Amino acid sequence: MFKSQIGVIGAGACDEGLSRIAESVGKEIAKRGALLVCGGLGGVMEAAAHGAKEEGGTTLGILPGSNRNDANMYVDIAVLSAMGHARNVLIVQSCDALIAIDGEYGTLSEIAHALKMGKPVVLLESQWEIKGTHVAHDPAEAVEMVFGFI
Amino acid sequence: MFKSQIGVIGAGACDEGLSRIAESVGKEIAKRGALLVCGGLGGVMEAAAHGAKEEGGTTLGILPGSNRNDANMYVDIAVLSAMGHARNVLIVQSCDALIAIDGEYGTLSEIAHALKMGKPVVLLESQWEIKGTHVAHDPAEAVEMVFGFI
Amino acid sequence: MFKSQIGVIGAGACDEGLSRIAESVGKEIAKRGALLVCGGLGGVMEAAAHGAKEEGGTTLGILPGSNRNDANMYVDIAVLSAMGHARNVLIVQSCDALIAIDGEYGTLSEIAHALKMGKPVVLLESQWEIKGTHVAHDPAEAVEMVFGFI
Amino acid sequence: MFKSQIGVIGAGACDEGLSRIAESVGKEIAKRGALLVCGGLGGVMEAAAHGAKEEGGTTLGILPGSNRNDANMYVDIAVLSAMGHARNVLIVQSCDALIAIDGEYGTLSEIAHALKMGKPVVLLESQWEIKGTHVAHDPAEAVEMVFGFI
Repeated sequence: MFKSQIGVIGAGACDEGLSRIAESVGKEIAKRGALLVCGGLGGVMEAAAHGAKEEGGTTLGILPGSNRNDANMYVDIAVLSAMGHARNVLIVQSCDALIAIDGEYGTLSEIAHALKMGKPVVLLESQWEIKGTHVAHDPAEAVEMVFGFI
Repeated sequence: MFKSQIGVIGAGACDEGLSRIAESVGKEIAKRGALLVCGGLGGVMEAAAHGAKEEGGTTLGILPGSNRNDANMYVDIAVLSAMGHARNVLIVQSCDALIAIDGEYGTLSEIAHALKMGKPVVLLESQWEIKGTHVAHDPAEAVEMVFGFI
Repeated sequence: MFKSQIGVIGAGACDEGLSRIAESVGKEIAKRGALLVCGGLGGVMEAAAHGAKEEGGTTLGILPGSNRNDANMYVDIAVLSAMGHARNVLIVQSCDALIAIDGEYGTLSEIAHALKMGKPVVLLESQWEIKGTHVAHDPAEAVEMVFGFI
Repeated sequence: MFKSQIGVIGAGACDEGLSRIAESVGKEIAKRGALLVCGGLGGVMEAAAHGAKEEGGTTLGILPGSNRNDANMYVDIAVLSAMGHARNVLIVQSCDALIAIDGEYGTLSEIAHALKMGKPVVLLESQWEIKGTHVAHDPAEAVEMVFGFI
């Protein structure tokens, strides 16, 4: 049996509060033995990957560009899409379920793609209200929910 | 000088009211000499392309699959992406501005990508309320707005 | 009935001899009422599009980047893929058949994709010898062959 | 420091001889601590992934479709591109260097993309003769060469 692949999506820059939340989410995902999938850059992506590595997890970063050095230091495996925004679709497509932490338009595009593909999406600290998503109130609940859905 | 490329996005199936709206939008775009870009399938895409052809316009359909016969009969030029949902990104990327008519999650993903890329998006009959978009109340106003932005 | 879509592929820079050949190929394609599909940049792509426009044809350029201004001046309709090399796949996928004029590794990738997809490929002035392709000796023959295959 | 990412490319079906070669290549890559990247399906891809797992390595499969169950059982991490042939570009883009084992047109497209991107390509049992590639005579030599290039 292969590992579950859980996406953590969110902005490439974030404040310390969101960073801590993303790190906790990453930790919980790793504790449950799942692969953490993210966009490989900074902000929420980096914090989540950091969390996963602290718990000995494995992290996959699917990057928009073609340079391995753009990946944050917690990305174990890098897919260099060189496809710009279409990389968002690759992230969603490769996950069993996703947790969106806050996030702007890029994150909104991923949420929409996930809903279109019928994949569970849990929102944490989100500014978006979108039918079909599930709202969690803290990292533990978000991860609990996401594993309940898959 | 090349033609403006205006996207009309919306669901692959729609009722007659939306169909009439999409057709009017397509007509107005063609009257102004712009290229109509759409997803090439049915519903809003087909009605908009139909409208553009009634006014002697040119239509580009960017399809999710690889079969030319999936395109509606009003598509002059077909790009067969064979990229599934990533084709939504191609549509947005190839337009100067977009008009979203109603639409579900697929359309939401396109709106989000457009906002992320900084492209103007006008909503008609939309269920989505998203900061950064512009709301029009009828086809003429939508097309008027979209040409004002580019 | 929709128009045939014929791809002309080749390097983004070329000498005058190849340029004249590409222009002739573009002319012949337009004379037969087909859409000319190319990568939208310079060299062979520009010369072929130029030829098509001289005969009143229509041209589609599928570009690797996201900037409309990268397209040569003979591109009527631009698809801005922003997908780098993956745009080669889009070109091939969107054509009924292709003519490769000389060309380096990028062209070789397109020839290979075309053969994999089962699309006819005619080579003109090619350095590549690949089973499954067809060799033409001048522009008229290349276009004759390509329309014979579709 | 992140791991090297080495691609092994080849046909989705192969005879036992090629399978043994691919398995040896996978083993050698894993022994050197690199990530094995492949297309995730059968034949050469499966045999190489199998070899890597026998040596305790990690394997990434970048698939053309959207179904995790299409991946062979030795794929640890699956990227589901749902992009058909464009997935070949993703594979190449994500590798530091590649080893092509025999292979048909799909493999040829990957070799061409790799050369276009300036990535080292070593050929084993190849029917293709392409300037810019390097020919190895056995799995050990192929892996030796590939690590020499990166």
